Amino acid sequence: MPTSRLETFSDGVFAIAATLLILDVRADGPSLGHDLLKIWPSYAAYAVSFLTIGIMWVNHHTVLEQIDRVDRNFLFLNVFFLMFVAFVPFPTSLVAAHLRDGGAKAAALVYGITLTGTAVLYNGLWLYAALGRRLLREDADRQVVAGITRSYLPGPWIYLAATLVALASPDASVALYGAIAAFYMLESSLFARRRSSAPEGDWPPLA
Amino acid sequence: MPTSRLETFSDGVFAIAATLLILDVRADGPSLGHDLLKIWPSYAAYAVSFLTIGIMWVNHHTVLEQIDRVDRNFLFLNVFFLMFVAFVPFPTSLVAAHLRDGGAKAAALVYGITLTGTAVLYNGLWLYAALGRRLLREDADRQVVAGITRSYLPGPWIYLAATLVALASPDASVALYGAIAAFYMLESSLFARRRSSAPEGDWPPLA
Amino acid sequence: MPTSRLETFSDGVFAIAATLLILDVRADGPSLGHDLLKIWPSYAAYAVSFLTIGIMWVNHHTVLEQIDRVDRNFLFLNVFFLMFVAFVPFPTSLVAAHLRDGGAKAAALVYGITLTGTAVLYNGLWLYAALGRRLLREDADRQVVAGITRSYLPGPWIYLAATLVALASPDASVALYGAIAAFYMLESSLFARRRSSAPEGDWPPLA
Amino acid sequence: MPTSRLETFSDGVFAIAATLLILDVRADGPSLGHDLLKIWPSYAAYAVSFLTIGIMWVNHHTVLEQIDRVDRNFLFLNVFFLMFVAFVPFPTSLVAAHLRDGGAKAAALVYGITLTGTAVLYNGLWLYAALGRRLLREDADRQVVAGITRSYLPGPWIYLAATLVALASPDASVALYGAIAAFYMLESSLFARRRSSAPEGDWPPLA
Repeated sequence: MPTSRLETFSDGVFAIAATLLILDVRADGPSLGHDLLKIWPSYAAYAVSFLTIGIMWVNHHTVLEQIDRVDRNFLFLNVFFLMFVAFVPFPTSLVAAHLRDGGAKAAALVYGITLTGTAVLYNGLWLYAALGRRLLREDADRQVVAGITRSYLPGPWIYLAATLVALASPDASVALYGAIAAFYMLESSLFARRRSSAPEGDWPPLA
Repeated sequence: MPTSRLETFSDGVFAIAATLLILDVRADGPSLGHDLLKIWPSYAAYAVSFLTIGIMWVNHHTVLEQIDRVDRNFLFLNVFFLMFVAFVPFPTSLVAAHLRDGGAKAAALVYGITLTGTAVLYNGLWLYAALGRRLLREDADRQVVAGITRSYLPGPWIYLAATLVALASPDASVALYGAIAAFYMLESSLFARRRSSAPEGDWPPLA
Repeated sequence: MPTSRLETFSDGVFAIAATLLILDVRADGPSLGHDLLKIWPSYAAYAVSFLTIGIMWVNHHTVLEQIDRVDRNFLFLNVFFLMFVAFVPFPTSLVAAHLRDGGAKAAALVYGITLTGTAVLYNGLWLYAALGRRLLREDADRQVVAGITRSYLPGPWIYLAATLVALASPDASVALYGAIAAFYMLESSLFARRRSSAPEGDWPPLA
Repeated sequence: MPTSRLETFSDGVFAIAATLLILDVRADGPSLGHDLLKIWPSYAAYAVSFLTIGIMWVNHHTVLEQIDRVDRNFLFLNVFFLMFVAFVPFPTSLVAAHLRDGGAKAAALVYGITLTGTAVLYNGLWLYAALGRRLLREDADRQVVAGITRSYLPGPWIYLAATLVALASPDASVALYGAIAAFYMLESSLFARRRSSAPEGDWPPLA
């Protein structure tokens, strides 16, 4: 099976999940100007979730570039993965609504658990395709494959750590989710730069 | 007519219907932590419906792989089919809201009727294309075609049976909808495996 | 400019507008079984709007098959057209909510005005492309072009008539919107059949 | 990296953001006919935002026509840009709800700030690709590139000016947002016409 319809469906879920986030940015108090400032957690949650979903989309893109065919198991793993991606608007709405009240800890925990689950499935998806080069393109570059593996493996642990921080401070935890997104974008740009300039054979393959 | 725009539109409806499901996962009681546990039927309904729509998408994919042109009737049959797919978020919200109250039986019945209707139209779509090989690719494999027919024909009866279970026990009925999704994913992976290893001519054609 | 991104964007709007319709099917009275029957206008409005949007999508498909390039004006006309398509969920929700109360006439009027406007813009889109064969493919068949023109020109008048019926009977008006969709599907299948069997030169060109 | 999946994802966000706008057109007072007239700010806000998003989509199309590959930085810039596009339904709902009450100024300001931010990121996206012809196609026409630059650079300042008008008159500000959309569509059609008729070398390159 070629990867094209998988991409259409996945891109649809990424795009919809990201765009639905705006439905939970709401201001309806008596004084609009004041309310628009008071709902800053909504803006923060919107930005962190949108960028996180955008990063997942870029990474999904990266994975599928290395693949030229998919099998049934990969299709279903991908559906499970997308089930977590499409879940993101729910914890985002919890953080938006509760970051300033007693529900902050629960909201930040659910948010972190969702992202941790997403990262676990994302690794599952990649490892299923990459182990033994099961679904990789004939000409997939060993270095690139190893670089992807190395760069994605820590994801679940990083999100798990940020999730645990929520037990002590929900605010710090949400700040960390944002920082992880920012770091990924920076690192990923640097990674692309290094990759294009690295001499052949410079990185030891991990996978 | 080629199948590409049919795929774009269909994939859009599948992706949106699946992603909209999250809008009915809601927690808004006074104590967030407690509420997040209490709404477990929402999570269950979300997962069952997301996976069921994901399976329909994979199967739609499988059908269109065997087809290389579509006619007007197929386009309209597909619109009817998608009308049922896009309906799924409604009974999902009913199950999420009512599985723990007096509306459980009605909710599970509407859920089951929707999936039964979807399965009926799905068979209609496939049989319209496959009977007399009306829209099949020249080189569509007889075995694969027969395998698809055999694997989809029981769908409506299985969903009808699960729907009738709702009259006795809504909980059991919803559990069955989930089990059907799990079974389809397992069976479909096994089917793919057997297909790729089966000696030529091993399966008698049914269609 | 090629037509491919126009199709992706348009198919997205068609698919989303159709799938959002389900958000206005809601049952939330005290007795679920009874409420599910009482909201039958919601089901009717959902089906009529979904099928109508599905027909618009099929027709858009038909138009773009005859075109191999688009210009700026066509892009903007298409955006206006999609603005009406994406508006359909609003009058659908009005009909669903008010068909059984004093707002029925207003709801049916707004529904009809929306569909009339959609049909007007649809004709505008087609005539812009077809007059003087401005954007048509070199090899676009004169008969097919004439057949499309003849089959779409009456659309606005038919919807206008059904809209005016709402002044006397909202119920009859909504029944007509459904009948128009059903008739279009039947006629369009027959049209496809006649077209494929008609001897060359049998139909006089209109455009 | 090719641009195809970037287009699918972006078109998805454009299409969904535009189509979600209808969810904030709501009429639910006691007298439907009267309410449908009273909510005219909702219709105006819907039309202005839908057309503005449509124009952004056309422009995005224009930019990507000049590009044949994207890098990581462009992907992330595009995600930031789409984050602003997907934000548009929120200020649209504010304008729809508050144009006739005390929140009009705040609503029009937030609307203008969003569009200004979108225009800034849009320029960033284009300049990142065009400066030093970093991502441009080999055969990208210097005149077309200069024309795009010249036509997009004023965008942020125009939107900023319309935003500042909201401090004096929210109504005038919203009228300006609509006028900007209308002007862009007209100018862009004229631009296309002049471009196709201009003698080679007629326009001095700006970038």
